Amino acid sequence: MKWIITKNYDEMSKTAMEVLLGYALATPYRTNMAITAGTTPKRLYEMMVPEVKGKNQYKNIHYYNFDEIPYKTGDREGVTMSELRSSFFAPADIPTDRIHVLDEKNYLEQDARLLADGGLDVMLLGIGTDGHYCGNLPGTTHFGDKTSRVDCDQAMKKRISGHFENSEDIPDFYVTMGPRSIMNAKNLILFATGERKADIMKTIWDQKVDESVPASLITLHPSITIIVDEGAASKI
Amino acid sequence: MKWIITKNYDEMSKTAMEVLLGYALATPYRTNMAITAGTTPKRLYEMMVPEVKGKNQYKNIHYYNFDEIPYKTGDREGVTMSELRSSFFAPADIPTDRIHVLDEKNYLEQDARLLADGGLDVMLLGIGTDGHYCGNLPGTTHFGDKTSRVDCDQAMKKRISGHFENSEDIPDFYVTMGPRSIMNAKNLILFATGERKADIMKTIWDQKVDESVPASLITLHPSITIIVDEGAASKI
Amino acid sequence: MKWIITKNYDEMSKTAMEVLLGYALATPYRTNMAITAGTTPKRLYEMMVPEVKGKNQYKNIHYYNFDEIPYKTGDREGVTMSELRSSFFAPADIPTDRIHVLDEKNYLEQDARLLADGGLDVMLLGIGTDGHYCGNLPGTTHFGDKTSRVDCDQAMKKRISGHFENSEDIPDFYVTMGPRSIMNAKNLILFATGERKADIMKTIWDQKVDESVPASLITLHPSITIIVDEGAASKI
Amino acid sequence: MKWIITKNYDEMSKTAMEVLLGYALATPYRTNMAITAGTTPKRLYEMMVPEVKGKNQYKNIHYYNFDEIPYKTGDREGVTMSELRSSFFAPADIPTDRIHVLDEKNYLEQDARLLADGGLDVMLLGIGTDGHYCGNLPGTTHFGDKTSRVDCDQAMKKRISGHFENSEDIPDFYVTMGPRSIMNAKNLILFATGERKADIMKTIWDQKVDESVPASLITLHPSITIIVDEGAASKI
Repeated sequence: MKWIITKNYDEMSKTAMEVLLGYALATPYRTNMAITAGTTPKRLYEMMVPEVKGKNQYKNIHYYNFDEIPYKTGDREGVTMSELRSSFFAPADIPTDRIHVLDEKNYLEQDARLLADGGLDVMLLGIGTDGHYCGNLPGTTHFGDKTSRVDCDQAMKKRISGHFENSEDIPDFYVTMGPRSIMNAKNLILFATGERKADIMKTIWDQKVDESVPASLITLHPSITIIVDEGAASKI
Repeated sequence: MKWIITKNYDEMSKTAMEVLLGYALATPYRTNMAITAGTTPKRLYEMMVPEVKGKNQYKNIHYYNFDEIPYKTGDREGVTMSELRSSFFAPADIPTDRIHVLDEKNYLEQDARLLADGGLDVMLLGIGTDGHYCGNLPGTTHFGDKTSRVDCDQAMKKRISGHFENSEDIPDFYVTMGPRSIMNAKNLILFATGERKADIMKTIWDQKVDESVPASLITLHPSITIIVDEGAASKI
Repeated sequence: MKWIITKNYDEMSKTAMEVLLGYALATPYRTNMAITAGTTPKRLYEMMVPEVKGKNQYKNIHYYNFDEIPYKTGDREGVTMSELRSSFFAPADIPTDRIHVLDEKNYLEQDARLLADGGLDVMLLGIGTDGHYCGNLPGTTHFGDKTSRVDCDQAMKKRISGHFENSEDIPDFYVTMGPRSIMNAKNLILFATGERKADIMKTIWDQKVDESVPASLITLHPSITIIVDEGAASKI
Repeated sequence: MKWIITKNYDEMSKTAMEVLLGYALATPYRTNMAITAGTTPKRLYEMMVPEVKGKNQYKNIHYYNFDEIPYKTGDREGVTMSELRSSFFAPADIPTDRIHVLDEKNYLEQDARLLADGGLDVMLLGIGTDGHYCGNLPGTTHFGDKTSRVDCDQAMKKRISGHFENSEDIPDFYVTMGPRSIMNAKNLILFATGERKADIMKTIWDQKVDESVPASLITLHPSITIIVDEGAASKI
């Protein structure tokens, strides 16, 4: 477990991008990378689009999403993939054959597919104030779980409702790579910004591992880099 | 997590030796290896002594122990190291400068020392019927713990008494690499033999991770190979 | 460069097999392996068939050939692949989707295909008394060459004629991964048996690198293991 | 072989620094890094000093030099180490125990020492207009050579005289890691700037490997990243 404490959101984003892309630069071979949607990576993707777009040195990267919230109606792509496309894949001109979609139809094959693809070389993960990462929220998956379907109760539906313009689209479940699947990646990056995350990062720093704080588990991965800014580090 | 099911104790021992030594064969560089004392590896060490003794291809191996039960009186070496010396280091003529001792005096530096040495490339671990590995028994260390000192209550003293001829030598504590330290190794091997281990291996197979079964955690390591014989595999 | 000197052909074959399969055992992920036809590996494949057949721990291996001598007439598969099928793939029940054929039709895509597949994790290579390896014979390819087509002059046609029952089938060229392609693998194994190979192994041992001894180059690979028996080692 | 073409000297320096430091960021374990003196890295070290100084995430780096031109008189440290100290080690506050000196006294142990230290994880290499790298100039070392002492003829003495204020200090020899030693590193970075290097980079690009262009060899390393600016790339 390696901690990198940076000055602010910009520097945190830049460092996380450099660590992430470093795995692809370090090798001429195919590099499999699972990346996160959400608010934390917004600045990172803004920096990463011009860095990656059309550049030969990053053409070995294959991209994966690691969770998905499907729309209940219609046949449009889910929330996570839609967001990754608009914030990164589209502006960076990533060709379709290097984007590997996880969704509600194929999630049961995700773990076997990753092994066959050579494994994930690196995952970029955010963390919630409740200690969740990917779709692993307190009270949902267990440490031993692989890629799973998680049913949404009313509280969860309310929680994810912000992603949907139309409440009829809020689904009854989502899918996520589970703790076991994520620990199977070769390298992990966890990043966090702002004082809002100071409490949870203090919990992570203290190294206690407990299912009530899902992300506490991944501090046990033999190659995890945790990147925070001074706000998120303010209580450690 | 990769499972290898072998016919019997001999084949299990041979396969475990091949996987273990494979990490050293695969590289010309220094290879750091932590190995286990106890009954399970007896046949393995009998096979490994002639395989390793004087052989150039294994001179890159540095050996570590991962736990130690010290003698309470006198200044003799602890139970684990004594056993490793008699079963393997002495008959295989391993020179002192490639044997790295963990004991009650230096255990607090163990984790930093391993990082400075380049990390453990591989650990060979046994498992108890109660799911313990190294000195991580149910009710002792927690998932988040590094190399630790574990105090022995009366039950534990009774349990370890078989290692001591003289009851005055039974110590009040032992030291062990903790779950966090072990997860930090690059590769793990867990091996088990016989029907006596069938129940615990069934529990491991089921992939539930819980602190009451300490070894359940290490199934989450991105590179763990589990090697059992048909007896130990009889309930999976 | 790591040298392993074994007693005889049997022990050499067993050690080479263990080193080769060690790369697959060491990881749960897909392992890409290029293996050799010819006489040296005969005993190795006899040992490897029962070791691999139906075994879960080797289902992550994908197999590649690294050269091919095509038949001039008809549309039958070439000499190398035919031999690998009969000596190993067929008796070991390797499914088609884990066998990746290099032939005269696709050789120009071989290097890009390997990068996209994640690179070769290991290649098993024989060596000729003239220092050739794969189809890289003195006077054919150069150190800087990728996978290439090599035209056969009369001397070469005579040399390869033993592979063909019907002289009309002797081709005007063969294809081979070139020195550059082979150096791009992550790990190499070179093996040799018998006094007939003693002179060339002495040359290799002396570490002079020269295009007139093609295999002298690959001693510069950062992870090469050279496995010989006492006959092949008799002049070093 | 991966090529990265950057806009100018500044961008080239920044990219080279990111790739170099990426190897250290990617792991919590000790990272062994051999770095170059000379003019090409001047901007890189200016950027790297504030990036590395006092930063926890780079405390796992151990630094090595790979060649040395000793002073003939007196007992002062050689040209390369003196330069590395003033341009990087001193301003970045690198502690002595993480600086590993190669000099004329210990060069014969360099290769064994590196294996024992776990191998070089990465080397940062410049290239001369004559294709030299480290002290491997045309007509000096051969592809098969390990760390060597190279005698200086009058031409060489004239060539290196610029490093010495006092001509009595010009030595009769220098030491350098040889091609074999350098190929043994796990990863290589070669960088070049300016139109003055355009011809040699065109030669490297063409992938012909020949001892008269020493650096042509290292394009065969399985993990080499070549970083140039538009000037150095202007003829490819």
